[in-house]
Amino acid sequence: MLLKFTKMHGAGNDFVVVDLISQRCKLRPRDIRKLADRRFGVGCDQVLLVEAPGNPEADFRYRIFNADGGEVEQCGNGARCFARFVRDRRLTSKRVITVETASGMIVLRVRDNHRVEVDMGAPVFEPGKIPFERTEAAQSYSLEIEGGSLEIGALSMGNPHAVHRVEEDVQAVDLAHLGPLVENHPEFPQRVNAGFMQVLSDSEINLRVYERGVGETLACGTGACAAVVYGITRNWLQDTVTVNLPGGKLSVSWQGPGQPVIMTGPTAVVFEGTIRL
Amino acid sequence: MLLKFTKMHGAGNDFVVVDLISQRCKLRPRDIRKLADRRFGVGCDQVLLVEAPGNPEADFRYRIFNADGGEVEQCGNGARCFARFVRDRRLTSKRVITVETASGMIVLRVRDNHRVEVDMGAPVFEPGKIPFERTEAAQSYSLEIEGGSLEIGALSMGNPHAVHRVEEDVQAVDLAHLGPLVENHPEFPQRVNAGFMQVLSDSEINLRVYERGVGETLACGTGACAAVVYGITRNWLQDTVTVNLPGGKLSVSWQGPGQPVIMTGPTAVVFEGTIRL
Repeated sequence: MLLKFTKMHGAGNDFVVVDLISQRCKLRPRDIRKLADRRFGVGCDQVLLVEAPGNPEADFRYRIFNADGGEVEQCGNGARCFARFVRDRRLTSKRVITVETASGMIVLRVRDNHRVEVDMGAPVFEPGKIPFERTEAAQSYSLEIEGGSLEIGALSMGNPHAVHRVEEDVQAVDLAHLGPLVENHPEFPQRVNAGFMQVLSDSEINLRVYERGVGETLACGTGACAAVVYGITRNWLQDTVTVNLPGGKLSVSWQGPGQPVIMTGPTAVVFEGTIRL
Repeated sequence: MLLKFTKMHGAGNDFVVVDLISQRCKLRPRDIRKLADRRFGVGCDQVLLVEAPGNPEADFRYRIFNADGGEVEQCGNGARCFARFVRDRRLTSKRVITVETASGMIVLRVRDNHRVEVDMGAPVFEPGKIPFERTEAAQSYSLEIEGGSLEIGALSMGNPHAVHRVEEDVQAVDLAHLGPLVENHPEFPQRVNAGFMQVLSDSEINLRVYERGVGETLACGTGACAAVVYGITRNWLQDTVTVNLPGGKLSVSWQGPGQPVIMTGPTAVVFEGTIRL
């Protein structure tokens, strides 16, 4: 089977995007793993599938797979690339695109070809829904790590996040050591994405994220949202914040509890290709 | 500029191959670096350029660039992919292909679409030509590393190699630590590729190579040749040896001093693509 694909990235978080509306084929988990393999396949952080929606209120169904072949709920950088892809491919001419994902409906607004605004939904603080094994929601929690404690915010953006504020340069954090300790902490039964943020001003942060099942990444979109939401609830940040990630800049806005988080950022097409599976 | 390319690999050593005979364009070092970048470009160990020969005795000129944009002399896995590429693309119908490289002429024999035999030229033992700062060629040398000594063979296969035989499982070698110490040893003024081999029988070895400027790789073709030549000079190996590398198997034959080393191995086309530079 010959499959056409497009390699894209959003702030360095890279994707193989496959149009399964114009191409009729079924990708098995081994096909996903091959597409994601950087030597024996195309290579990416996630494979994005563009499908026809099941729900008639949606324009598309958007499915996301990690390199290990497992399906994941949400990826904000991927959602931006998704929006650019369906417009570049003329699968839609809408600028406001409603998309069905594994974690619910999301709305994408195309500002221009290169920047897309994503409604990431409202953050969820209820511990049982993160999931986080605490009985009551709190602004911050003390997490036991190696006998000491780490102050974190915990919330879900469709996927679980723990965010810790550092006072020093975030580049100095030993993420390869601390990341897995937070990710696999027993109080997060589905593991957790671990963010470390440095507040530069009330409208700018530096952020590094150790992603669940992946390791440190260049730009975690939901991690950027989680960090800004945590910073706003702590009154460290205003409602619109520039997030500097290793792979680029994202802008995140949030008007407070119950409101959706809006993330805006760049998209890039890297190349087009054809692979035999 | 829209550039067509093919992603290939030989035993996991991966390449972006560009036909500069059918496509007229000049690639700058930044274009090479972009092609080789695994997130912001296509991604590969080396970029291979197929050009018209300068020397009328050659069928093609074959140029090899590392991911950092620097040109290198020789790559045996790349040479096999090169041979398959020019035949797949019908740039030649010959099965014996003469190629001009930065380290001289090489001859490629296409056995079938998937296996190619490469005449890698004769090994060079003269220290000044490796270059290795010793006055006389020897079967082995004692290299000072961290106050201790490491017994190595040293030779050039168009590029410099140091090979050390281990008695235990080669997987147990701490290559991330030892590799750079050998690679950057002051007695190798142009640095050196560092191979660690385990002899399984007189016709089979396991090999790991720490490549100069790259780190550990899945399959270093010239490293496989250097290890087998060293093992034959020490009477540990017969004239034809299977080399098990992390990325796959190569077969290496050598009839002794003055004779060329013949390497045979697999090739694979991964995908075809088009990128805007």
